[in-house]
Amino acid sequence: MNQQNGAEAMLASLINAGVEICFANPGTSEMQMVAAMDKISGMRPVLVLFEGVASGAADGYGRIADKPAATMLHLGPGLSNAMANLHNARRAHTPMLNLIGDHASSHAQYDAPLASDIVGQANTVCDWVRVAESAEDLARCGVEAVQQSQQGAGQVTSVVVPADFAWTPVNQQCAPLAPPVRETVSDKKIEAIAEQLQDGGNNALMLGGVALRKRGLTAAGRIARKLGIQVFSETFPTRWQRGAGLFQPTPVPYLAELAITTLKGLDKLVLVGAKAPVAFFAYPNLPGQLTDESTELLSLASVDEDLDAALEALAERLGAHQAPEVAQRATPPAPREELCMIGVGAVIAELMPENCIVSEEAVTGSFGFYPMTQGAAPHEVLTVTGGAIGQGLPVAAGAALAAPERKVLCLHGDGGAMYTPQSLWTIARENLDVTIVIYKNNSYSILNLELMRTGASGQAEQARSLLDLSNPIIDWVGLATSMGIPASSANTVADFRHQFADAMAQQGPRLIEAELVEMDLLAAVAAMAKEKS
Amino acid sequence: MNQQNGAEAMLASLINAGVEICFANPGTSEMQMVAAMDKISGMRPVLVLFEGVASGAADGYGRIADKPAATMLHLGPGLSNAMANLHNARRAHTPMLNLIGDHASSHAQYDAPLASDIVGQANTVCDWVRVAESAEDLARCGVEAVQQSQQGAGQVTSVVVPADFAWTPVNQQCAPLAPPVRETVSDKKIEAIAEQLQDGGNNALMLGGVALRKRGLTAAGRIARKLGIQVFSETFPTRWQRGAGLFQPTPVPYLAELAITTLKGLDKLVLVGAKAPVAFFAYPNLPGQLTDESTELLSLASVDEDLDAALEALAERLGAHQAPEVAQRATPPAPREELCMIGVGAVIAELMPENCIVSEEAVTGSFGFYPMTQGAAPHEVLTVTGGAIGQGLPVAAGAALAAPERKVLCLHGDGGAMYTPQSLWTIARENLDVTIVIYKNNSYSILNLELMRTGASGQAEQARSLLDLSNPIIDWVGLATSMGIPASSANTVADFRHQFADAMAQQGPRLIEAELVEMDLLAAVAAMAKEKS
Repeated sequence: MNQQNGAEAMLASLINAGVEICFANPGTSEMQMVAAMDKISGMRPVLVLFEGVASGAADGYGRIADKPAATMLHLGPGLSNAMANLHNARRAHTPMLNLIGDHASSHAQYDAPLASDIVGQANTVCDWVRVAESAEDLARCGVEAVQQSQQGAGQVTSVVVPADFAWTPVNQQCAPLAPPVRETVSDKKIEAIAEQLQDGGNNALMLGGVALRKRGLTAAGRIARKLGIQVFSETFPTRWQRGAGLFQPTPVPYLAELAITTLKGLDKLVLVGAKAPVAFFAYPNLPGQLTDESTELLSLASVDEDLDAALEALAERLGAHQAPEVAQRATPPAPREELCMIGVGAVIAELMPENCIVSEEAVTGSFGFYPMTQGAAPHEVLTVTGGAIGQGLPVAAGAALAAPERKVLCLHGDGGAMYTPQSLWTIARENLDVTIVIYKNNSYSILNLELMRTGASGQAEQARSLLDLSNPIIDWVGLATSMGIPASSANTVADFRHQFADAMAQQGPRLIEAELVEMDLLAAVAAMAKEKS
Repeated sequence: MNQQNGAEAMLASLINAGVEICFANPGTSEMQMVAAMDKISGMRPVLVLFEGVASGAADGYGRIADKPAATMLHLGPGLSNAMANLHNARRAHTPMLNLIGDHASSHAQYDAPLASDIVGQANTVCDWVRVAESAEDLARCGVEAVQQSQQGAGQVTSVVVPADFAWTPVNQQCAPLAPPVRETVSDKKIEAIAEQLQDGGNNALMLGGVALRKRGLTAAGRIARKLGIQVFSETFPTRWQRGAGLFQPTPVPYLAELAITTLKGLDKLVLVGAKAPVAFFAYPNLPGQLTDESTELLSLASVDEDLDAALEALAERLGAHQAPEVAQRATPPAPREELCMIGVGAVIAELMPENCIVSEEAVTGSFGFYPMTQGAAPHEVLTVTGGAIGQGLPVAAGAALAAPERKVLCLHGDGGAMYTPQSLWTIARENLDVTIVIYKNNSYSILNLELMRTGASGQAEQARSLLDLSNPIIDWVGLATSMGIPASSANTVADFRHQFADAMAQQGPRLIEAELVEMDLLAAVAAMAKEKS
C-alpha cells in the first residue's frame, strides 16, 4: 500500500470506527477528503446542495441508525449553513460527526476571504469540537469524535480539518476507541422514586429520549397501570414509537395554555430522560414553567443515563408486572370532504404502512396528525427538537438512508419546507423511498396564532404581509418536479387518499401538495382539547 | 399618542435614524416588532423565506444605498441561517443592522428548545453586537447600531432584542446619533507615498473599497497616466464601477497561478483600501502571498479611511492633472454559436443597459463576463466578497430595492444559486426589475479545476459524484416558474440574445437558464491569459 495522506488515514480510521456515510458539500479546502473517497472504500458520499441539508440528513440518519453519520462542510460559511439543523441535532442528542474543512495552517496568517472563527461558531452548536493539530492528529481526532458522539444519549461533534494536514503524508491510521457505556441509575435512586410515587398523591411520569421507544414505553405503561398514574411525553421527541399496540403517553402540548391545563394539579412529576416542561416561548401573561408551582419535580434519570433499565427496575420494584394498556387499531374518518389538516391526518392514519418513519415538521398540521394516528399502524416519529424549522426534509432523507427497507413519510408545513428545498434534489438523486406531504396553507399559519398570543395587537396590512405566503403562491408540484421528484396536488380527501395510496403502493420519491381549506386554528385546537378532556 | 412599547420606540427611532427597509423572516419572539410595523409608518417590511436571503438582500441594499438596511432574525437559528451572507457582508464592509429576536429575559432560565448562544454566534460574523438590557435600551441600541454600521467603510451590527423588552411600555424614543466622519489620510503620508512612487521602480497601485467607484478610479487613472504605473484592483470588490468611459484597473486574478504572474516583478505595491493580495486558498506547491518576496507593500489608506480624498490629494501632489485613459465602448462578438460562458458575456456586453447593477456570482462564468464587458455600457458589479456562495440572488434583490429605477442583472452559477433559491420568491413578490442568468453546466465546475489544483489525484467515480449536479438535472425554468418568475432556457447564442434582449426591453423579474456547452476551463482561462499578455 502506498503511503496515505492525512485525509486518507482519517477516512480509513472513521470507516474502521463504523462511520458509513458522509453528507457532503465540499469546496476547495475539502478536495483532499473528496479525493480520499476514491482511494478508501467503505464510506458512502452523499452530495447535498446546501449544508443545512447535510446536517439535517446526518441528524435523521443518526436518530434511526443510533450511530453517527459524518458531514463534510466548507469552512466557516459551510458550518454556518449547517448550524440551524445542528442546533436541532444537539437538542435531539443525535450522534454526529462534522468534518469542517479549513484553510491550510500555513494560510491562517493571511486572513483570506473565507477565513472566519470556525471554532467560535462550532462551539455554539456542538457538544465537542477539536481542531486537528497535525496530519497524524486527523485520524486521532476522527476516532475520538466518533467515541464522543456516542457519549450518553448522543452528542454533536466537530473536527476542524486544516487542508495542509489533509494533504500531508502520514505513517498510520488510528484504531477505533471503545464506545462509551451508558451510565445506569442507582438502586437507591430507584427505591427513592418508587416511594415517592406510592404516596397516594396525584403523581405522573414524563418521558423523553429513548424512553419513548417500545422498551421504555412498555415499562412506563406497566408502572402507569399498576399505580394508576398518568404518563406524559416531551413535546418534541427525538424518536417516538407510537401507534396500535404501543403504550401511548400524553404529549405535553405545544400551546402553553393547553400544557398548563394538561399538567394542572399534579403533586409530583417524575422526569425520565425529559427536561422540566417549560413554555416554548414566553408570553406576556403566561408563566414559563408549565407545571403548577406546587408540583414537585423529581428526576429518575437524565437523558444520558440508561432509561430503559431504570424504568424496568422501577417497574419491578413496584411489582408492576401486568402488560400496559396499549392503543387499539383505530382510524377515525375524515371530518369532511374538503381537505383540512384533520382529513390529511385521517388518510395518513388509514394508509401508512407498518414500521414507517415519519419526519414531522407539519407545524399546525400536527394538530391533525397526532390525534388521528394514535391507533394507526405502529410507526416512529422524528420531530423538530430544537425549534429550528427546515429540518423535516433533510431528516427524512437521512432516515431513509439509515433504513432503506422502510417507508419514510415527511409531513411538512409549506413555510418550513422552503427553508431547505434543496433536500428534494438529494432525495431524487439517491432515489429514496420518501413520500413528502406539503401542508399548503400559503401562510406561516402558526404565526397568526402567535401574533395573537404575544398580545401583539397589530393585525393590519404590514404585519399580515410578514406571515403570508400567498403572493406569489408557491407551486410545489412545479418545484418538486424541477428537482426530479414526481409530484401531484390534492384539495379533496378523495384526491388526497388516491394520491397517498398510490405513493404507499410504490417505492421511491414522491411529493403530494395538500391544498388545505382555510380553517380557524384556534377553534379547531380548542375543539380537540375539549373532546379529549 | 398612546404609550409605545419597546419595539415601537425602537422602530420609530430607527426610522428617524434613516433606516427604511427591513428584510424579515419573523417568528414568535419577533411578533412585537412585526406588530409595530403597523403602528409606526416609514419602514418597508420585505418578507423573505429564509434568513440567508435577508442578510444577502441587506448586503445588496447597503452596498447600493450606502446606508444600512435592517434584517429581522428569529433567535439563534435565524441568525445561523443568515451567517454565511453576513460573513460576505462583513468582508464587503457593508453597513447593516440585524435585529435578532430572543426569548424574553425572564425565559432565559428555562433553556427552552430554541435557546442558544446568540451573542457567541453573532460575534463570529459581526463587527458590533449589543444585547438590549431593558425596554428603554432597545431604541438606544438601535440608533447606536445605525451609527456604528457607518463607521469607516461600513460595519455589520447586531442588536439582540429580548421579547419582553419589546412588549414593555417605554416613555421615549431615541434621537439619531451623528453619522461618523471618515478619517482622512495625513498630508505626511501622502507626501511619503508620492516619493516612494516616483523612485523610478516598477511600482503599482492596488485599489479596493470605494476607490473602485468613479471618483477614486479617476484619480487613480490620473496617477497611472502621470507615472506610467499599473493599477490593480482587488479580486472580489464590494462595488466596482466599470465599463466604457471609466478607468479600468487590472483585477488580481482569482487563480493564484495567474495572480502570481500578474503581480510578478513589482518593486512596490501601494495599497489603497485593499488588503495585501493573498491566495484565496492554499495549494500544496504555491505560496500564500501573491506578490514576489522582494515586492515592498505600502499602504496609502485603509478601507476605512477617505480613499477618494487620499487618491485625489496624491494625484495633485504628483501633478497628475490629465484625465485618465478610459475603456472605449467595444463589444466583442461571441466566439461561436453554441452557448459558452464567453458567448453569454458577449451578449450581455452588447445589450446591458447603462447604469445597470450586476450581482455577480457566476464563478467559472465570470471568466467570460469580465473580459467581454470591459467596453460595455458603464455598470456596477457587486461580487462575493467573502467567498460564501449563495449571495448573488439575494444581493440582486436588495440592490433592486435600493435602486428601483435601475436594471439589475444577477449572473449566477447553478451550484451557488441552489444555496438561496428562495430569493426567487421575494424577487417575484416585490416585482423587482431583476434579470437572472443561470450559468448552467450541471456541475460545481470550479471544483473540477480545484480538485486538480490541490494535487488531489482521485478523479474517479466517488470524487466526481461530489462535484456533479447532473443527476438529476435541475430544471431552472420550472424552479423559477414555481416561485412566480417568468423563465426561459437558451442553448445557442441566438436564443440567448433573443431572450436577454426581451428581458432588457421589459421591467420586472425574469430568469434565463443559459445551458452551456461543456468546455475545457483550464484551456479557456489559459487562452484568455495568453491573449491578454
